[in-house]
Amino acid sequence: MLIQNTTSSLIDTLRDRRQRLATLIDFPAILWSGSRRSRNYPANNFPYRASSHFLYFAGLPLSDVAILLEAGKLELFMDDPQPNSALWHGEMSRREEIAQIIGADAARPMSELELVVEGVATIAVQDAATWTQQSQLLNRWVLPQNPPQGRDLELAKAIISLRLIHDDDALAELRKAAAVTVEAHKAGMMATTNAKIEAEVRAAMERVIIAHNMTTSYNSIVTVHGEVLHNEQYHHPLQLGDLLLADVGAETSRGWAADVTRTWPVSGEFSSTQRDIYHVVLAAHDACIAKIRPGVEYQDIHLLACTTIALGLRDLGILQGNPQDLVEMDAHALFFPHGIGHLVGLDVHDMEDLGDFAGYEAGRQRSDRFGWSYLRLNRPLRPGMLVTIEPGFYQVPAILNDVNLRSKYQDVVNWDRLAQFADVRGIRIEDDVLVTTEGSEVLTIWLPTDASAVEELVRKS
Amino acid sequence: MLIQNTTSSLIDTLRDRRQRLATLIDFPAILWSGSRRSRNYPANNFPYRASSHFLYFAGLPLSDVAILLEAGKLELFMDDPQPNSALWHGEMSRREEIAQIIGADAARPMSELELVVEGVATIAVQDAATWTQQSQLLNRWVLPQNPPQGRDLELAKAIISLRLIHDDDALAELRKAAAVTVEAHKAGMMATTNAKIEAEVRAAMERVIIAHNMTTSYNSIVTVHGEVLHNEQYHHPLQLGDLLLADVGAETSRGWAADVTRTWPVSGEFSSTQRDIYHVVLAAHDACIAKIRPGVEYQDIHLLACTTIALGLRDLGILQGNPQDLVEMDAHALFFPHGIGHLVGLDVHDMEDLGDFAGYEAGRQRSDRFGWSYLRLNRPLRPGMLVTIEPGFYQVPAILNDVNLRSKYQDVVNWDRLAQFADVRGIRIEDDVLVTTEGSEVLTIWLPTDASAVEELVRKS
Repeated sequence: MLIQNTTSSLIDTLRDRRQRLATLIDFPAILWSGSRRSRNYPANNFPYRASSHFLYFAGLPLSDVAILLEAGKLELFMDDPQPNSALWHGEMSRREEIAQIIGADAARPMSELELVVEGVATIAVQDAATWTQQSQLLNRWVLPQNPPQGRDLELAKAIISLRLIHDDDALAELRKAAAVTVEAHKAGMMATTNAKIEAEVRAAMERVIIAHNMTTSYNSIVTVHGEVLHNEQYHHPLQLGDLLLADVGAETSRGWAADVTRTWPVSGEFSSTQRDIYHVVLAAHDACIAKIRPGVEYQDIHLLACTTIALGLRDLGILQGNPQDLVEMDAHALFFPHGIGHLVGLDVHDMEDLGDFAGYEAGRQRSDRFGWSYLRLNRPLRPGMLVTIEPGFYQVPAILNDVNLRSKYQDVVNWDRLAQFADVRGIRIEDDVLVTTEGSEVLTIWLPTDASAVEELVRKS
Repeated sequence: MLIQNTTSSLIDTLRDRRQRLATLIDFPAILWSGSRRSRNYPANNFPYRASSHFLYFAGLPLSDVAILLEAGKLELFMDDPQPNSALWHGEMSRREEIAQIIGADAARPMSELELVVEGVATIAVQDAATWTQQSQLLNRWVLPQNPPQGRDLELAKAIISLRLIHDDDALAELRKAAAVTVEAHKAGMMATTNAKIEAEVRAAMERVIIAHNMTTSYNSIVTVHGEVLHNEQYHHPLQLGDLLLADVGAETSRGWAADVTRTWPVSGEFSSTQRDIYHVVLAAHDACIAKIRPGVEYQDIHLLACTTIALGLRDLGILQGNPQDLVEMDAHALFFPHGIGHLVGLDVHDMEDLGDFAGYEAGRQRSDRFGWSYLRLNRPLRPGMLVTIEPGFYQVPAILNDVNLRSKYQDVVNWDRLAQFADVRGIRIEDDVLVTTEGSEVLTIWLPTDASAVEELVRKS
C-alpha cells in the first residue's frame, strides 16, 4: 500500500493518544497490526482488517508491523517491502515514509522487536499468525480467547479508558461512517420495490458503501426474517406484505464503524398491525435517545426501552398487566430479547475482543436473567461515548414456542391477540448516539425513523 | 444456516465424485469444512468460506463439520446447533437433515471423529482453528504451508485428478458464476462515465454480484493503475485519458468461481496509442483461445501469447527484432511478465492451496526464467478443464526502470517509441475457457472484447 492523503493532524492525534496512555501505565506496550488471512488458498486473502487497538495508536491499516509505545513515544517495527512486491502490489511505502506519516519517534526492522520485549504488555490479535508471533516473542501464551491478565490487563484497561471517550479525530471518522451508512439505507429503501429478493436490496446498500471506498463494518443483515437476529441469508423473495429489516453499517478506511438498522414495508406501506408495532419500537427508540446524557446509567436506558415496549404491547392488548410488573418478570423479553445497544468505535461492538471489560463498569457482571443477558453495555454514560440505541420487536419461534416460557408467561400474553400480528416477524430501529456534555447527538439523524417518511422513501424508487 | 433448494442431482453428483475417488485411493480420507474466522473480535467474522476440497465432496458451505470418505461412502460428522443459536442465527438444519440432503451414508456427532482416524489422509484447511484440530486428531502436523506427504499426497493427487476435469454439476455452477460476472463487467463499463473514483465502478460491479446472492471470488481489481497486477486500492480519481482495468469475478453460493478482466477507456474512447496496444493484447487473447483443444500443452499457449505480443509490439515499433528471438530472450516479459492463465474451479486459482501439484504435470517444475516464473499452469489440456486466458501489457516502473533489465534489453526496445505510449499503463483481457472434446468454449463469451463494442458500452451510461 502506498499511503496517501494524511495530514499533520493525524500525527498530533496519535501523539496525544500515546501521551495519554503514558499517564495511565508505567511500562512499555507492543501492539501488533495483524496479518492477512487466507480465504481458500494462501494467495487469496480476505480483505485486510488491522487490529483495532493498533489502529487507534498507529492510525493506518498497516499489516505485519508492530509498534512499541513507551513513555509517550512510538517506535515503528516494520520491514521494507520485498523486491518483487512492486510488480504485484505496486510501490509500497517504506518504513521511513510510514514512520514520518504517523509521527513515529523511531523506525526499526521487525527483527529488532525481540530486543525490546522485556516487561512489555500486549493485547492478543485475532489472527493465528500474529498471536503465534506474539506468544513466541513474549515467551508466554497470548491468545485472543484468553482474558488478559497482569500487565496485559492493566494495558487493556488503560486503552479502554481512552477508547471509551472519542477524540476529535475519532469523531470525524465516525461521522463519515455514519453519513455513508445513512445514504446506504436510503438507497436500500429506494431499491426495494424493484427488488425480487433480499440480496438485491443488500446490493444497493453495499454499493453505496463500496463506492465511498469504505467497507461494511459487519456482515450486513438484510432480511424479511428479522426475527433471526443475526440473519446472514439473502435469498428470500420479497413479498408485498413483508417487512424488510436492514442492519447495515459502513466502516472507514481507517477502521471506524457505524451501525444502523431500519425496518420498512416491502410494499411501501405498513399494514395497520405493522404500523402499530413499529410505533411501539419507535417510542422506545425516541424515549431512550431523549434520556441519554452524561451520568445516566446505560442499564437504565435499557430498562426504559423494556418498559416502553411493555407499555406499548400492553396498550395493543398483546401483554396484560402493569408495564413495570411485566418488565420485572421479563415478559418484554419474549419480544425484545436483546440489549438496547452497545459501544461503537473502531469495532462495531467496540472493544468486544476484551470480553466485557470495555462494556461493563469494573465490578459489574453480565446478568443471566432472560432479557438482560445480552446487554452488552453497563456503565454510566460520559461525554464522548458513542452508543447504539436499537430497540426491537421480534416473534422468535424458538422463544414463543418454548414450552417453559409459554407456561411461565401464559397469563400475561394474550396469545389470540398476538396471532393478529403475524405479519410482524421482526422490527428494529437503530441509531448511533453520541453522548455530549449537553445530552446527546444522533450521528445518524439524517435517516428518517418516522413511519410515513420511511414509506415515502420506499415508494420513491 | 437452514439449507434449501437442493435437488437429488446434487446427491448423485456427490456420490459419483466419491465413488471415483474410491477408484484412486484405497485408504480413508477425512476432509474438514473449516471454521469462521474472526475479523476484529470473535463475534465479528469474515464472510464464511468453506474449504474447496470439502465443498467438492460435501456440496454445501457447512462450517465446523467433517466428512469421512471411504470406499465410495460418505459419513458426516457434525454437531447439532446449540440451543440458543436459533435466536441469533435462525433455525439451523440438523445433522440428520444435512445428511439426507447430501446423501450421506451415515451421520455422527463430531466427538466420534476420533474413532475413525486410523490411517486416514487429509488436506490442511486454511484456518488455524481447523488445522489445529486436524493436527491434534491425526496426531501429526497438518499445516496449510507444508506440502502434503505420504498418504496425504496420494489423496491430494487423487483429488486433483478429479477436480481438474469438471463434471456437469461443476460446469452448471461455473456457468452461473460466468454469467453473473459478465453482467457485473457490463455494469462497470456503464457506470464509468458517471464515476469520479475507481471505487464507484467497483461498487457498480460488485452490486451485480451481491444482488445475485453471490460473492466475489477474489478481491476485485478496479484500477486506473493496471500496471500494478494485484492492485487493491480504489481511491484514484478517474481521468478522461485513463484506461480502467477491472479484474472482477463472481463465486456461487456453493463456491464455484469466475475470473474475468476487461480494460476500457474512462472517456468511452481509446486514444490511438491505447487502441494500438489493446489490439496487440486482443490478438494474443484470440490466438490463444483459438489454439485451445485437448492435447495442446498449456505452456505452448503461453508461448503463443508471448510471440503474438512480441510481434505486435515489434509492428508498433516498441520492440525491435524477430519475434521468436525476442521471446527467446524474454523481451516480451518486459511488458507481459505474468503467465497466460491458470485453472479455475472451486478456487479462482484452482487448487493452489496444494502449491504447484495441481497446476504442474508430474515431473515438471516452475521455471525461474523472467516471463515464465509466474506461469501457474503447465499441463496438456484435457476436455473438462477450465482455464483463464489473460494476456496483458503493462508498463511496470519496477521492471522498466530496473537497471539490469534496461541494460540487458537496451537494444531490443525502442525507448523513444515506447515513450509515445505513456497513456497505456496496463491492459489485460481475460476470459474463462472450457476445454471441450471439439476444442474450446468461452464461458464468458457474452462480454465483448472488441474495442468498439467496449467503447459503446462505456458510452451507454
